[in-house]
Amino acid sequence: MKFFSKKDNTITHFSEDMKPNGTVQLNETIVVETYDCYGGQIDSEEVMRPDIDLSIMNQATGPFFVNDLTKNDVLKIDIINIELDSTGIMMTSPGLGVLGEKITKPMTRLLAVKGHRVYFSDDLSIPVRPMIGVIGVAPKEGSFHCAVPGNHGGNLDTKDITAGNSIYLPVFQEGGLFALGDLHASMGDGELNGTGVEINGESTLFITKLAHRRISAPIVETAKAFMFLESANTLEGAIELCAERVTEHLTGQLAINFDTAYRLLSAACDIQISQVVNKLVTVRIAVPKTLLPALFMK
Amino acid sequence: MKFFSKKDNTITHFSEDMKPNGTVQLNETIVVETYDCYGGQIDSEEVMRPDIDLSIMNQATGPFFVNDLTKNDVLKIDIINIELDSTGIMMTSPGLGVLGEKITKPMTRLLAVKGHRVYFSDDLSIPVRPMIGVIGVAPKEGSFHCAVPGNHGGNLDTKDITAGNSIYLPVFQEGGLFALGDLHASMGDGELNGTGVEINGESTLFITKLAHRRISAPIVETAKAFMFLESANTLEGAIELCAERVTEHLTGQLAINFDTAYRLLSAACDIQISQVVNKLVTVRIAVPKTLLPALFMK
Repeated sequence: MKFFSKKDNTITHFSEDMKPNGTVQLNETIVVETYDCYGGQIDSEEVMRPDIDLSIMNQATGPFFVNDLTKNDVLKIDIINIELDSTGIMMTSPGLGVLGEKITKPMTRLLAVKGHRVYFSDDLSIPVRPMIGVIGVAPKEGSFHCAVPGNHGGNLDTKDITAGNSIYLPVFQEGGLFALGDLHASMGDGELNGTGVEINGESTLFITKLAHRRISAPIVETAKAFMFLESANTLEGAIELCAERVTEHLTGQLAINFDTAYRLLSAACDIQISQVVNKLVTVRIAVPKTLLPALFMK
Repeated sequence: MKFFSKKDNTITHFSEDMKPNGTVQLNETIVVETYDCYGGQIDSEEVMRPDIDLSIMNQATGPFFVNDLTKNDVLKIDIINIELDSTGIMMTSPGLGVLGEKITKPMTRLLAVKGHRVYFSDDLSIPVRPMIGVIGVAPKEGSFHCAVPGNHGGNLDTKDITAGNSIYLPVFQEGGLFALGDLHASMGDGELNGTGVEINGESTLFITKLAHRRISAPIVETAKAFMFLESANTLEGAIELCAERVTEHLTGQLAINFDTAYRLLSAACDIQISQVVNKLVTVRIAVPKTLLPALFMK
């Protein structure tokens, strides 16, 4: 399997004109090594958030040019496996997260990750749930810092971007130019204190495409649902965008009118929160496969 | 089993001084019959939302006085079973739900509910997922319309309030005085168009209590998690309230400090949306039982 090292291979921005750091074939399995979201700046609990260079936060390994992937296709990435290092990081700092005003001083904690558990102390641990925080492609226009989510992907911080699931990404530039990073050993919906259990690791991915299809923003496929992701300034704004996109998709794919699609949205689909702590917040609507068996029905 | 009919037995408000419509013993199983959220006003697709009396919306059957339940206890209701009638209702109307501005005229649809499916047309159906929309107790002070959610419960519209799960409610008045109604044959998180599949039915409940405990607002227990519910004017406000409450609960029950609780909140707990369409919106934080095996640990 092709292996891509994180060394000399990362980006801090998803840009329309970025140059590839590697080439991938369709139907190829690859392994991508990534830094934790701090880019390897934290080697002890003495290093606090105000001490580090935030400009390289959430850097991603890539971008990778996918041969034979055009703007008329959708990039599909199956996440086969995520291997984590043995130490996770959680940094808190005044103002960070939904209760940030309760934090009086910065604090860095290194957490042991072993035996599929994350240890907060010797007798307090939670299950490991590995996920990819940053994954995206070259955007249609402009340049987006890797810490920001958007239609191109980026810092989506969605816990369903995990082994066993797939992510569909729009192709705005020839070859897609995808990159990823910012693994978490665990993160809950919302990422409520502003950070997951941040960690280095390696992701095994299978790269393929849906030919002659078009999507406007990322979609995650789980065993049970297709999840349509949208990011915006506010939760209300993101929810409305996402509801609009899903009703349009249901209307087209199930050959129903808006009224029926809107009823099905309310009766059968779940609006879920991915994260509320990045520059834009991210939500997803899960459309169950009992309603939509395939992303494209015809 | 004691059976409570919906006839002459409903309330439109949860009030501090409401009088009981029945008495229940601790450790008793009861069956409660309830109206759909429109109070039985809809008998054909010709009846539109502007035609009905909205003042009796979301009426609840009860309230029931629970013997030996005091303000020093928590009311626990195990939801054993929910039986539904054979016809569900979905009404849309201009302005209703997150895409309400796209609706040009009111529309009422009666949907067949049979064989554990809800039929939107002959060849389009979704699985039945019965739930209780309104459930609550007499509030500490004042009077709240049954269409509104709050610390006393009320119109929580939380799909996890379903058979197999339990709801814990604060006891603000002697005997608790609980009531319920507004069953849905199905509803997705968010209740995005403003309505579930509204339906008459009967709920089988087992009534018990946690003695000498206190909670500030409803909690739902599922097989995997304790869900702390909060309602507020905005999603951001509800999320902050809920995060604060959960970190306080974890701090006390796991004997940890705020910093550790806040990290666990972010790494292991999920913020989820119950509904965004009532006068106050409702969110819940799911605390997994892997982290908190019992609601009260000591």
